[in-house]
Amino acid sequence: MRILGIDPGTGICGFGVIEVDGRNNVRMITAGVISTPPHTPLADRLLDIYDSLSQIIDECKPDETAVEKLFFNQNITTGITVAEARGVIMLVARQHNLVIAEYTPLQIKQTLTGYGRADKKQMQEMVRIHLNLKEIPKPDDAADALATAITHSLMRKGV
Amino acid sequence: MRILGIDPGTGICGFGVIEVDGRNNVRMITAGVISTPPHTPLADRLLDIYDSLSQIIDECKPDETAVEKLFFNQNITTGITVAEARGVIMLVARQHNLVIAEYTPLQIKQTLTGYGRADKKQMQEMVRIHLNLKEIPKPDDAADALATAITHSLMRKGV
Repeated sequence: MRILGIDPGTGICGFGVIEVDGRNNVRMITAGVISTPPHTPLADRLLDIYDSLSQIIDECKPDETAVEKLFFNQNITTGITVAEARGVIMLVARQHNLVIAEYTPLQIKQTLTGYGRADKKQMQEMVRIHLNLKEIPKPDDAADALATAITHSLMRKGV
Repeated sequence: MRILGIDPGTGICGFGVIEVDGRNNVRMITAGVISTPPHTPLADRLLDIYDSLSQIIDECKPDETAVEKLFFNQNITTGITVAEARGVIMLVARQHNLVIAEYTPLQIKQTLTGYGRADKKQMQEMVRIHLNLKEIPKPDDAADALATAITHSLMRKGV
């Protein structure tokens, strides 16, 4: 069973695909980011995300997707553009008939480290360990997307 | 030249198409709302909006679109879902190669009434007058969408 994790954003959108076997062992299939050029119209960037994500789904054939939920702390303007990207991401997932799960940053941290205030380094190290990798996946947004996918693999186990 | 005005939302998304002639006279082609059932998953609602809006564009063949911009006053949760719908709307417009303009509620009020604090009634009355209609278009979200389209017809005149 394959899970596509997504860390939404208009400038950089992280993605990571993992495969989960019957014993709930996970391995990484691929991970990376969709980057859209700055100073281009929002609609162009959303189209880029739509096309790139559709291609990733067509190639990797995930069964389910886990998308990071928005959490608002300070920057509302950033929050709006992330939500606009998130709308497009949810649409693509739905058009490809993927099961869609959503997790807050807090849920992801707690599931991976047992600690809601884990920092970026700790999170990335847990991603590396879970996926049995030699190096921490780069860039950060790809690692975040993998963390979301791993969270889903652990959460759905109990279902 | 046809302009599609949109008042974004996940539950109710208003739309209105107007035609502008060489003398900048405007008339209404159609107006209405895309409603998505409550208590259904967000992704399903976004797909509804995507499909319905694509169909409206295919049928009405607008050249340009004017989308109401988000303005945050109180409810941030509503704001996020509106932004998610807005992402999908911008995507559809871009996929149909429409020129895309965005206006804040303040710009729309000022352009239509010359007064940034105009109330809903005043706005709807101005929509009725501009489009030379007997009745105010219903429901409110359709009238709001028409107001956005009319704003664009007046703003682009000066370009």
